[in-house]
Amino acid sequence: MKNYIIHSEWQVIEEGFNPGYNRISESLFSIGNGHTGQRANFEETYSGDSLKGNYMAGVYYPDKTRVGWWKNGYPEYFAKILNAANWIGLRIRLDEEELDLATAEVEDFSRVLDMRTALLTRTFKAQLPSGKKIEVKAERFLSIAEKEVGAIRYSLKSVNFDGTLSLCSFIDGDIANEDSNYDEKFWMETEKDVAPDKAFLCMETKKTSFFVCHGIETHLYHNGEKVKAARQPYSDEKFVANNFELGVSAGDEVVIEKYMAVNSSLYQSRQKLMLHVKVKLGEAVAAGFDKLFDAHSEKWEKRWETADIMVKGDAAAQQGIRFNIFQLMQTYSGDDERLNVGPKGFTGEKYGGVTYWDTEAYCLPFFMATAPQLVAKNLLLYRHKHLQKAIENAQKLGFSDGAALYPMVTINGEECHNEWEITFEEIHRNGAIAYAIYNYINYTGDKNYLAPFGFEVLLGISRFWAQRINWSEDKNAYVMLGVTGPNEYENNVNNNFHTSRMAVWTLKYTLEVIDYLTKEHPYLYSELTRKWSFNEQSETALWREIIDNMYFPYDKKREIFLQQDGFLDKEIIPAADLDPAERPIHQNWSWDRILRSCYIKQADTLQSFYWFRHDFDKETLRRHFDFYEPITVHESSLSSCIHAILAARIGREEKAYEMYLRTARLDLDDYNNDTEDGLHITSMGGTWLAFVETFGGMDVKDGQLLLNPFLPKSWDAFAFRINFRGAHLEIRMGSELKITNHSAVAVDVVIWGEQHQLKENGELVLASKSVPQ
Amino acid sequence: MKNYIIHSEWQVIEEGFNPGYNRISESLFSIGNGHTGQRANFEETYSGDSLKGNYMAGVYYPDKTRVGWWKNGYPEYFAKILNAANWIGLRIRLDEEELDLATAEVEDFSRVLDMRTALLTRTFKAQLPSGKKIEVKAERFLSIAEKEVGAIRYSLKSVNFDGTLSLCSFIDGDIANEDSNYDEKFWMETEKDVAPDKAFLCMETKKTSFFVCHGIETHLYHNGEKVKAARQPYSDEKFVANNFELGVSAGDEVVIEKYMAVNSSLYQSRQKLMLHVKVKLGEAVAAGFDKLFDAHSEKWEKRWETADIMVKGDAAAQQGIRFNIFQLMQTYSGDDERLNVGPKGFTGEKYGGVTYWDTEAYCLPFFMATAPQLVAKNLLLYRHKHLQKAIENAQKLGFSDGAALYPMVTINGEECHNEWEITFEEIHRNGAIAYAIYNYINYTGDKNYLAPFGFEVLLGISRFWAQRINWSEDKNAYVMLGVTGPNEYENNVNNNFHTSRMAVWTLKYTLEVIDYLTKEHPYLYSELTRKWSFNEQSETALWREIIDNMYFPYDKKREIFLQQDGFLDKEIIPAADLDPAERPIHQNWSWDRILRSCYIKQADTLQSFYWFRHDFDKETLRRHFDFYEPITVHESSLSSCIHAILAARIGREEKAYEMYLRTARLDLDDYNNDTEDGLHITSMGGTWLAFVETFGGMDVKDGQLLLNPFLPKSWDAFAFRINFRGAHLEIRMGSELKITNHSAVAVDVVIWGEQHQLKENGELVLASKSVPQ
Repeated sequence: MKNYIIHSEWQVIEEGFNPGYNRISESLFSIGNGHTGQRANFEETYSGDSLKGNYMAGVYYPDKTRVGWWKNGYPEYFAKILNAANWIGLRIRLDEEELDLATAEVEDFSRVLDMRTALLTRTFKAQLPSGKKIEVKAERFLSIAEKEVGAIRYSLKSVNFDGTLSLCSFIDGDIANEDSNYDEKFWMETEKDVAPDKAFLCMETKKTSFFVCHGIETHLYHNGEKVKAARQPYSDEKFVANNFELGVSAGDEVVIEKYMAVNSSLYQSRQKLMLHVKVKLGEAVAAGFDKLFDAHSEKWEKRWETADIMVKGDAAAQQGIRFNIFQLMQTYSGDDERLNVGPKGFTGEKYGGVTYWDTEAYCLPFFMATAPQLVAKNLLLYRHKHLQKAIENAQKLGFSDGAALYPMVTINGEECHNEWEITFEEIHRNGAIAYAIYNYINYTGDKNYLAPFGFEVLLGISRFWAQRINWSEDKNAYVMLGVTGPNEYENNVNNNFHTSRMAVWTLKYTLEVIDYLTKEHPYLYSELTRKWSFNEQSETALWREIIDNMYFPYDKKREIFLQQDGFLDKEIIPAADLDPAERPIHQNWSWDRILRSCYIKQADTLQSFYWFRHDFDKETLRRHFDFYEPITVHESSLSSCIHAILAARIGREEKAYEMYLRTARLDLDDYNNDTEDGLHITSMGGTWLAFVETFGGMDVKDGQLLLNPFLPKSWDAFAFRINFRGAHLEIRMGSELKITNHSAVAVDVVIWGEQHQLKENGELVLASKSVPQ
Repeated sequence: MKNYIIHSEWQVIEEGFNPGYNRISESLFSIGNGHTGQRANFEETYSGDSLKGNYMAGVYYPDKTRVGWWKNGYPEYFAKILNAANWIGLRIRLDEEELDLATAEVEDFSRVLDMRTALLTRTFKAQLPSGKKIEVKAERFLSIAEKEVGAIRYSLKSVNFDGTLSLCSFIDGDIANEDSNYDEKFWMETEKDVAPDKAFLCMETKKTSFFVCHGIETHLYHNGEKVKAARQPYSDEKFVANNFELGVSAGDEVVIEKYMAVNSSLYQSRQKLMLHVKVKLGEAVAAGFDKLFDAHSEKWEKRWETADIMVKGDAAAQQGIRFNIFQLMQTYSGDDERLNVGPKGFTGEKYGGVTYWDTEAYCLPFFMATAPQLVAKNLLLYRHKHLQKAIENAQKLGFSDGAALYPMVTINGEECHNEWEITFEEIHRNGAIAYAIYNYINYTGDKNYLAPFGFEVLLGISRFWAQRINWSEDKNAYVMLGVTGPNEYENNVNNNFHTSRMAVWTLKYTLEVIDYLTKEHPYLYSELTRKWSFNEQSETALWREIIDNMYFPYDKKREIFLQQDGFLDKEIIPAADLDPAERPIHQNWSWDRILRSCYIKQADTLQSFYWFRHDFDKETLRRHFDFYEPITVHESSLSSCIHAILAARIGREEKAYEMYLRTARLDLDDYNNDTEDGLHITSMGGTWLAFVETFGGMDVKDGQLLLNPFLPKSWDAFAFRINFRGAHLEIRMGSELKITNHSAVAVDVVIWGEQHQLKENGELVLASKSVPQ
C-alpha cells in the first residue's frame, strides 16, 4: 500500500518526483476517451523505469498461448489488446544535451489529473547535468468531443540557457507488448508520409490485419510568437518525426503544440485511412488547442452531470469514488457494441483479453444508471453478437444442439483463457450473462430487448445448463459436477451452490421469457423457435424437471446452504486468526493448501444472496453472512463491494463502511501492489455499485425503485445521481434526505419501505438516518 | 498402432526402409548400458526426419520452468536428462557426393536389434543420385562389460564406384534438447584434443557443472588390410573430427572401426577426466572390436540367465516380453544409487526428470526378482538420499516438523513438476515410496534395511500424512481433502480411497516398524528418535487416532469402497458404450468433461486391492473389479498390468490375457502413437509384473513364496525365473508345471494353495492348469 497521492476532491495529484513510483503514477494518471487511451508517460525522453503504453479499443492480436501442460480444448491463442504507436514523443535537446528526468536534477515536480475535464498536467524544473536549467509545464488530453484527436501543450522556459533548442516530435510505431508470450512484435509498417511539420504513420497488426494510422502536427511558439523554426522531416522503419531547431536565450519561453489524429480500420477502410486522418488532423489544427479543449471539457461536464457522486467531509472518500467513476467513463463510452470494458482499460496490458464476467456482474449497473440506455444495451448486444461463437465454444467441450458457453476471457467471442479449472469450469459466468439480461430489463423496463436478442442468448445458456447438469441416482436429484465458483480458491467442486442456483434461475427466467413472448410476441417467438430448432415441449419439460429436482448442499444444523459438497469437511477457522505474515494467502500458500482451506476469495454463495435478494429474508441472509464473511479473505478486488452491500442490508453499518473503504481507493493507494500494471477498471464498477447500494440502499423490484439510504458517521453528506426509466434523480443525504427529480418524468420511489411519489422536477425531503434500515 | 516390426523370439527386426517410421525405429532399436545410451540414429549423415539422441545417466540440466499460470509453490525449473554429444557420426562422401539415405535409393534395408547380445545391426544397399552404388553393414554396441566403452564396425562395399572415399569420423557436442523450454543450449565446451586418428571433446553443462568427456579412435581396413589412409584432424567449436581419404575401386570393401570411451564428473574428477578417457579408449582399441563384443555378450548372457521369460507358441508374445525385460536391463544396472529408472530411459528426452512413483510401484519388483539384491536396495537408497529434500519440499507446501513429501518428478530430490493438481495433490506417491520399503523387506527378508534407512523414510512420510489429514466435524472422522489419486482423470477430490488407505497403511506399518526396532534394535532406535526429535508417545497417539477413525467413502448398496466422495453422483456408463471415435478420451474430450465423467485412467481403488491383496477376500475383489474395470479406459500405460493381475486373481483368464496383451507390445506396435518420443520404460516393469503375477500367480506372504500359475490357451508353454531369498527358481508351465531350483538353497513354495518344498537344486513337477485358481 502506498500513500503518496494527495487527497483532493476533483484532482489526482502527485507532488515531488518519485521515480520509484513512476509506473504506478503512469497507471493512475492515465487518460482515455473510450476509443484510445494511454498511460501517463512523459513526452520527453525518460531513461528511467517506465511502461510506455498507448492502446486502441478493439485492436487486438492473437498471441500464441503459453502453457505448461496442454489440455485438450485449450485455445491456441490469447487475444491481447495491443500496445500501439507512441505519438506523444518530444525529444528535447539543449545544445545536444538531452532533457531526461532520470539524469537531470528535478525540482517542483507535480502531476495533476483533473478529473472534471480529463486534463493531465505536469510541471517541473530541471537542471541538466551541465547546469542548464529549464521549467516545463506539459498539458495533454484525449478529446471525448472529437474521439480521434489528442493534443499536447508543452511549455518550456529557459532559466539560464542560451543556445540551440533541438526538438524531435515523433510517432514511434516500433512497439511491443511487455506481456508478449514469446517476445514477438505484433505490428508491421504499411505506409508513412512526412512533411516538415507533420507526419503520418500507418501500421498493420499481424494475423488480425487491423490498420491504424496516426498523424501528428507540431507548432512552435517563441515568447508568444508562432515561429517557423528550422525544420527537417525524418523517417525510419516504423518511425516518423519532425525535427526543429530554435535559438533561445535565458528567460525565453517556447511553447510546443502537438496535435494528433488517429483512426483504425474498425471505422475507416484501409484505403481511406490516412486521408481521413489527414483531414481530421487538419480540422484539429485549425481549431487549435484551446477550442479543442473547451469542446472536450464541456462534454466531460455533461457526463459528470449525470454520473457524479459527492461525499462531504471526507476528501479521500470523495477522491476515491470520483476516480472510479472517471476511469469507467474514460474506458467505455458505449457507442460501439464491438467494444467492452477491459480489465485494465487503457492503463496497462496485463490480463490481455477484454471481457470477463466482471462486465455483466459489476460494470453494467453503473452504465445503466448513469449513461444513456443504449450504452448498457450495447454491453448486452456485445454478447449477443458472440452467441454463435459461444455455441462453438460449447461444442468444443462436447455440448450440442445450440448449447452456448460464453468464454471466460474474450475479445471477439472466442475463448482466450487456458487454465482448465477456470476456462472449462468457471461456468457461472454464463449465469452472469443471463442475469445481465434480467437486470437490464428489470432496471430499464425495456422488454423489447427480449426478442430476439435476450431470448436467443437465454435459450443458448439454458440449453447449456440442461446438458451440463446430470441426474444422480445416489442423490435422487439433479447435480452439477466439476465446477469452479466465483470463489476461485476452490477448484473442480461438485454442486457449487451459486453455480447451480444460477443454472436453475436461468431456466426459470427463460421459461418466464417464453411465457411473455408467447403472449406478447407470438409471431416473432414462433419464428425464433424455428430458427433455433427449439423443441419447446421436450426441452422445457426437462428444464422443469431440473428446476423441481435440483440438489443444493444444505446444512440442517446451521440452516445454511453450503458453498459446495463437502464444505463442512474443512476446518473452519476465522480469517482473523490467520497469521498476518501469511496474508494474502495467495502469495504465501501453495495452491493445494489454499484449496483445502476454508478461505474464500470473493463472494460465492453470497453472490447469489446479492443477486437474488428478494428470495431470502434478512434473517437467512444474516445467517449466511455470518458463516461466510468471517472466512472470506477478500483477495479479489471484486469481493468487498458485494460484502459492503450485504452488510448494509443486514444493518451492519460499520462492516459495510469498512468493506466499502477497501474497494474505493484500491488503485489510488495501491492496496495490492499491482497498480503499476494498470488500474482495476472492472472493479471500479463494483465500487460504484457498493456506493449506491450500500449507502443509497438502491434496489429495483418489479419495476419499482427502492432506496434505503444511510449516512456513515464519518461523512457530513453524500449525493449520487441515477437515471431511472426516463427520470433523472439526485439523491442527497445529509442532515436530511433530499431527492430531486431533474426531469419531466414523475417516478414512484419506496424509501425505507414507504411509498413516495417524486413529481416531474419535484423534490422530496425526509429526515436522515445513520444506520441501514 | 503400427505393425511393421517382424516377430522373432530374440530379435527386433525392421525390414525395408520406412523413413516415415524413422523416429519410432530410432526409439525401438535404442541401446544402452545403464550409464549411457542412445537412440538408433544412423552413423552416416541423414537429412530425413530424426531425433538424434545420446544420453548420460545422471547428467541433467535444470531447465527454466514453462508455465501458463503460475501458482505459488511451483518449482522454478524442470530438471532434464541432457541430450549429450553425438559420437557415432561418420560422414561418408564418394568423390564429394554424400551418403545420405534421405537422398539415395535404398534397397534391402534392415535393422536388427539382437536382444540376447544387445547388438544393433543395420544393412542396406544405396544408390546415390549420381548412380554410385554401395552396400553397408553397420554394427554397434555399448558395452556392459566396460561401461565406458562403445564400438562401431561399419563395413562398406563399393559395388560400382571407383574413386576417393572421404570419411569424417566425429564427435559433435553442439547438441540441444528437442524439448528445451526456451530453445536454450545447455552445453559448453571445456577442452578438446585431436590427433590424426583420435579425438577428444570435453563438455560442461551450464548451471549444474557436470563434465563429460568423449574420446573416439577410428581405424580403417581396406579389403581386410589395416590401412593408414590420408588423415587430417579437424576441430571447431564443440566439434572434433578425424578426416580420412582412401582410393577405392568397385568390389572393394572398406571396414571402419570406431571406438568410443566416455566418462563424466559423476565418476572422475574434472582434472583427470580426459586422461581417464584416453586410457580407457586405449584399452578398448587394444582389445579390438571382437574381444570387446565377446566380453559384452557374455555378460548379457549371464543377465538373461536370471531374468529371461520364455513363451512357447506365440512369437509376438515372446518378443514382447523379452523386449520389455531387455529395455529394463539396458536402462538401469543398479550399481549407483544416484541413478533411477527414467520414464524414457536412454531412448528419448520427453517428460524430463527421471524418477516417478512408477519406479517403486512397477519397476522395483522386476529388479528384486531378477537382479542381485543390492540393485533393488539401491532404488530404495535413492529415496533415502533425498529425504532431506523431501522434507524441504513439504515445508514449501506448509508442512513442518520433519514431514516429508517426495516429489512427483525428480532427478536430485527436488520437485520438477508444475501442475498443481499433480505436483501438490498426487500425494499417494508418498505411499508408494513407503510401500516399496515394505515390499522389499517382504520379498527379500532384509529387515536390516529398516534401521536407519527404512525407518527414517517411513517416519517422514507418516508425519506428512498425520499433518495432511484433518478432522471433519461433519463426518465425525478424519478426512483427506483435495487430492488426485492414481486415476489422473479426477483432480482435487476429497477422500480418495486409495490415497487415504495408503496413508493409514503407512501409519500402521510405521508403528509395526517401531515395534520391531524397539524390540530388536533398541539402542539404534533411541538414537534415531533423538536424531529426528521424534516424540513417539504424542505422535503415535495421533497416528492411532487416525488409524481408528479414518473415513473411507463406501456404498452400502453395492458394498464397495468408492474412489472418492461423490463418485456415485456421476453417470455410470460402461466404457464399452463409448463411441470408438472418441477414444482415447484424453485426445478427444476437454478436460472438464473427462473429470466429471466416470471414466478411470488407471487402477485407483483397484491399486489398493492389488497392493493389499491379503486384506480383501476374492468376493470383495470381484465386486470392486466388476464395478471399476468396466469404466476404466486404460489410457495410462500402467493400467493394464494391474488389471491383468487382478483379473487372474478372480479367475477371469480371458480378461487377464486381454489386459496382458495391451501392455506387452505397447511400444513394439506403437499402440499410443508416441513411441517416436522414446519407449515407455517404467511401464515395462509393469509388463514383467503382469507376466509373473498373472500367469505365474506369484505372491509373497509372511516370507512365504506363493505361486498360482495358469497357462493361457493360446500358448504351448511359458517359463520365468526369479531370485527368492538366496534361491534361484525356474518356473516352467507347459503340459505340466515344472519348478527347478537352480541353487543350493532349499525353499518352501505354496503352489495352488498347497505347501511344497523345493530342495537345493531340486525339481518339482505337477499337472498343469489353464485357468487361474
